[in-house]
Amino acid sequence: MDRGKLRRVMLALGAAVVAAGAAPAPRSMNDILAASPLGDWRAINPANTLVMELPTGRVVIELAPTFAPNAIANIKALVRAHYFDGAAIVRAQDNYVVQWSQSGHHAVGTAKSTITPEFDRAIGRDVDFTSLPDPDTYAPQTGFSNGFPVARDPAAERMWLTHCYGMVGVGRDVAANSGNGSELYAVIGQSPRNLDRNVTLVGRVVEGIELLSTLPRGTGPLGFYEKPSQRVPIESIRLASDLPTAQRPRLEALRTDSATFRALLAERRTRPDPWYKHTPAHIGVCNMPLPVRTAPRKA
Amino acid sequence: MDRGKLRRVMLALGAAVVAAGAAPAPRSMNDILAASPLGDWRAINPANTLVMELPTGRVVIELAPTFAPNAIANIKALVRAHYFDGAAIVRAQDNYVVQWSQSGHHAVGTAKSTITPEFDRAIGRDVDFTSLPDPDTYAPQTGFSNGFPVARDPAAERMWLTHCYGMVGVGRDVAANSGNGSELYAVIGQSPRNLDRNVTLVGRVVEGIELLSTLPRGTGPLGFYEKPSQRVPIESIRLASDLPTAQRPRLEALRTDSATFRALLAERRTRPDPWYKHTPAHIGVCNMPLPVRTAPRKA
Repeated sequence: MDRGKLRRVMLALGAAVVAAGAAPAPRSMNDILAASPLGDWRAINPANTLVMELPTGRVVIELAPTFAPNAIANIKALVRAHYFDGAAIVRAQDNYVVQWSQSGHHAVGTAKSTITPEFDRAIGRDVDFTSLPDPDTYAPQTGFSNGFPVARDPAAERMWLTHCYGMVGVGRDVAANSGNGSELYAVIGQSPRNLDRNVTLVGRVVEGIELLSTLPRGTGPLGFYEKPSQRVPIESIRLASDLPTAQRPRLEALRTDSATFRALLAERRTRPDPWYKHTPAHIGVCNMPLPVRTAPRKA
Repeated sequence: MDRGKLRRVMLALGAAVVAAGAAPAPRSMNDILAASPLGDWRAINPANTLVMELPTGRVVIELAPTFAPNAIANIKALVRAHYFDGAAIVRAQDNYVVQWSQSGHHAVGTAKSTITPEFDRAIGRDVDFTSLPDPDTYAPQTGFSNGFPVARDPAAERMWLTHCYGMVGVGRDVAANSGNGSELYAVIGQSPRNLDRNVTLVGRVVEGIELLSTLPRGTGPLGFYEKPSQRVPIESIRLASDLPTAQRPRLEALRTDSATFRALLAERRTRPDPWYKHTPAHIGVCNMPLPVRTAPRKA
């Protein structure tokens, strides 16, 4: 019954079978990643990385300035004013989002109180796009751009980030321009794709999502914590490039325009693994892993 | 910035606006459910309900015998032999599944050690089907049957339960018939639809999913807990019909073949709410809420 244990045994056996001259076992995700050339990985830019310190550890968020330059400039201004120090996670709604904000008045530096929504952007030559072949429920086309899940409407020449697990967005009120990045949320459940093009998404959690996804759910409406004592304190949020070098996350992301990513996509779509009895032959934009690893130490 | 608070205020204002004679506000999900006739709800059958007792509370699972009669008969035999008393949650993989099993030898009653896989079934006249209008990534057709999310392949005349959040399935080894219901898992993240037609799904969590989704993630491969002390003990699993009446869950599910469900589907698809600036106009099978409520007390 221990499917995990058995599969690990099978993976371990794979190499021996190949050495004995039998047909090579199909390449697993781990095989593909292990064989990837260094150039198929990119360092995650510390100037576009947020580090959130919780009592339980670090949550690291990669920002996507190609999609939300104004919101991200505003968030950086708030972060540099230490706006989020002493903020709190105020909402954890099961199968939906975790949300954090500050209460009371705090320094905002050069941040603006409202910014233009960045719900989508033009399909431009400045952004790469690796397309997925399968239909999507919500958009004419989906795929990946610079490490992020995206959707496109070629007829309208627009593209946007999609609400997959771990994506981070700008909470807002009813007015489209009412979010300025001072209240953010992360997706912790089934992708709420209905929010696509309704919110400015700014990035995704690349480390520590489990610190958010395991938080006790709020029992108030929409998963808000009912008592201030239930809120989870945020010690600080910093731009990684503002941290001393030794404290910066050293993360690399697999390039989504790389041959390794294309091989991984083919493997995840077809699952050439004896465990699978029915080949899925399809994959959704929010089901594709976007691998991140700690950068190898330089010699 | 408090989107939740503001939306609650707006909902509260809605009634006043209507009373003053203005155009009626669009019906929200809460409005639709509040106006539902009693006949649009069905009591969840205690003979097809599992009650799992954890130290933190109860997890209630509705079984779907229309889709997996053999697996469910076997699970009921195990449950009636008290097989799961003292079992444990052994795996919690972020954005994927929580899994439980028993260790050592325990009474299995009349349960079989292997059973025929029930990965899909014939499209038959014995099952209702409420179709979704939008494309699905993984299947030719999706919708709902007797309260469960399903997919269909009309050309092959097959249908199957889909791996949405909260769905419960039978863990197995590489052999298709190796799962007998003695190891079960629940989905706690993005729907792993690649598992559809590869596993026998047997039901879904209708109460207490947050007790599973918030468990600390296992740090071993595939999210297995590395130390026995990290496992979460299961006090017992019982069939609700075997519990004293006062201890049975009194739950009702919205009928997915009802007018109320169709109205809810239209609302969730179009989101006629001033917060939405871009109408999704689409909905996925794993994004549709399947409402469950405590049955009103009889007078």
